[in-house]
Amino acid sequence: MESVAVIGGGSWATALVKIISENKFSVSWWFRKEADVDHVLKYQHNDRYLSGVTLNLSYVQPSTNLPQVIQQATWVILAVPAAFIESVLANLPPTIFTGKYVVSAIKGMIPVKNCLVTEYMQATFGVLMQQQCVIAGPCHAEEVALEKQSYLSIGSLDLQLAERFCVLLRNRYVRASPLDDIYGIEYCAVMKNIIALACGIAHGLNYGDNFQAVMVSNAMLEIEAFLQAIYPRPRNLSGSAYLGDLLVTAYSQFSRNRTFGNMVGRGYSVKSAQFEMNMIAEGYYAVKIIHELNKKLRVKMPITAAAYNILYERISPPVEIAILKDKFQ
Amino acid sequence: MESVAVIGGGSWATALVKIISENKFSVSWWFRKEADVDHVLKYQHNDRYLSGVTLNLSYVQPSTNLPQVIQQATWVILAVPAAFIESVLANLPPTIFTGKYVVSAIKGMIPVKNCLVTEYMQATFGVLMQQQCVIAGPCHAEEVALEKQSYLSIGSLDLQLAERFCVLLRNRYVRASPLDDIYGIEYCAVMKNIIALACGIAHGLNYGDNFQAVMVSNAMLEIEAFLQAIYPRPRNLSGSAYLGDLLVTAYSQFSRNRTFGNMVGRGYSVKSAQFEMNMIAEGYYAVKIIHELNKKLRVKMPITAAAYNILYERISPPVEIAILKDKFQ
Repeated sequence: MESVAVIGGGSWATALVKIISENKFSVSWWFRKEADVDHVLKYQHNDRYLSGVTLNLSYVQPSTNLPQVIQQATWVILAVPAAFIESVLANLPPTIFTGKYVVSAIKGMIPVKNCLVTEYMQATFGVLMQQQCVIAGPCHAEEVALEKQSYLSIGSLDLQLAERFCVLLRNRYVRASPLDDIYGIEYCAVMKNIIALACGIAHGLNYGDNFQAVMVSNAMLEIEAFLQAIYPRPRNLSGSAYLGDLLVTAYSQFSRNRTFGNMVGRGYSVKSAQFEMNMIAEGYYAVKIIHELNKKLRVKMPITAAAYNILYERISPPVEIAILKDKFQ
Repeated sequence: MESVAVIGGGSWATALVKIISENKFSVSWWFRKEADVDHVLKYQHNDRYLSGVTLNLSYVQPSTNLPQVIQQATWVILAVPAAFIESVLANLPPTIFTGKYVVSAIKGMIPVKNCLVTEYMQATFGVLMQQQCVIAGPCHAEEVALEKQSYLSIGSLDLQLAERFCVLLRNRYVRASPLDDIYGIEYCAVMKNIIALACGIAHGLNYGDNFQAVMVSNAMLEIEAFLQAIYPRPRNLSGSAYLGDLLVTAYSQFSRNRTFGNMVGRGYSVKSAQFEMNMIAEGYYAVKIIHELNKKLRVKMPITAAAYNILYERISPPVEIAILKDKFQ
């Protein structure tokens, strides 16, 4: 019988715990704070995220004891914001992931190291790429909570492993399919947050639907160029793991990256937008990392460059987006 | 000096008249009804569509005299719903378009004949494909009225001709670029309406953002397969004339195809939805035409097939969309 550990107490973690435990697989669930564990045990739902989701405690064991949570499981799902993953995993024994499969549900990269989560897990804990999977959307946690029809793509170098993980997820409202382009979908998941953030900025500046459609289609060209530079291979980016994932983020009311960008476009400073949202917008970090990676690759990435200039160089959003609009095809 | 005739009094026609006349090119503008001509002359705006747009009568000459409107112009823009084009042009002398450039702003095909508007103009009036252009979005007329930043793609076999037409359109808020894939963008403009309609149906059935994102990315695969079957050539469908045009229609609140689909999804009959909207949803006709064309091509088109079954075979929308959802990748 498969058993799963979920690391992180946010909305995406909660959605995954719901799906997997409803399928009657045992889930050990790590929270940072004891109070969150107590809340789950007492009320059968997560206190702060997707609190409408009732959890079956016969299958869900919340805990703050990270080594124990990991040791109990064959699958370890990482679902904390990328910026925190290093500190969360900091004091673990280096061999703790031996014999386990690691699944990244993180849509971001490790800051400063500028590497993918899968690359980080390989370098730090010796988890082979063949033992890893990544979960890509298009999938908003909020819609999983509402049991709306959703689709997940599971990327892995080992398609059989990906299929084995798909089995944990499939249900009445979730379809899951394996995919072998693990790097492509991991980068795409990161870059879509940049695009959603840029769409939010444009929206905050009062640009309309026509402009957003052009932004998103140009974004696809930008993502394609970047992926072909960093991990060349044949891909059809119209697939739901790429375009679909971008669309759900760039167009949805639930996207925190879009909301964050929208506030910046409306004139909020980066700090005050972050303070007001009280949530991490992964795109904020992704902009810096992809921009830095691209210093070597030198791919034409006008949207990422514009977002970087606005967020990190303090160029005024109206000026930067006006320049960007003339670059679109 | 270029002069332009615009055939049709709807919102897209009005937006084009606004753009071209503001660029100080003379526009003769055909309406079916004398009352609409009188309204424009008296109030300087179109009575029923984009009525907030003030027109400069030094450059705009409305008229119900179709042969005269055409004869005055070097460019003739067709902007009536595809279903009406045959009846509108019915009594014209067969040589009236000789020496003129014809531009289709129609996002639909000729019913029964099941051909593109450009093909129809070639067959019926001998207008060579080299003398024709098509206007593709992504561009909602309503946002042109608001002078929101918009992008147009002008398709033609003759790129120089397309560029010459672009000059008539470019301004502070419109960017226009020439493109040589005239058939591809004309078909894509037709098919996007089918997809928007299908998105509307799903929305009316309470499917969410996750599902719509998967629908649209699967739609791109469906459009790609159809285009490669009917007019094979290398194309990057992520460009704004293809994907962008689809997005603006499938995601926008202004899309009448989406609105029509939404009503059908909510349980309206086709007739009552059409009656209530009081506008033609081009997608309704497009579904039938593309479905029939595909009888020969036999491309996998699950979304078009589902829309056909719902609109023409009276299969219940919940049943048909539930079958469709299992076909998505």
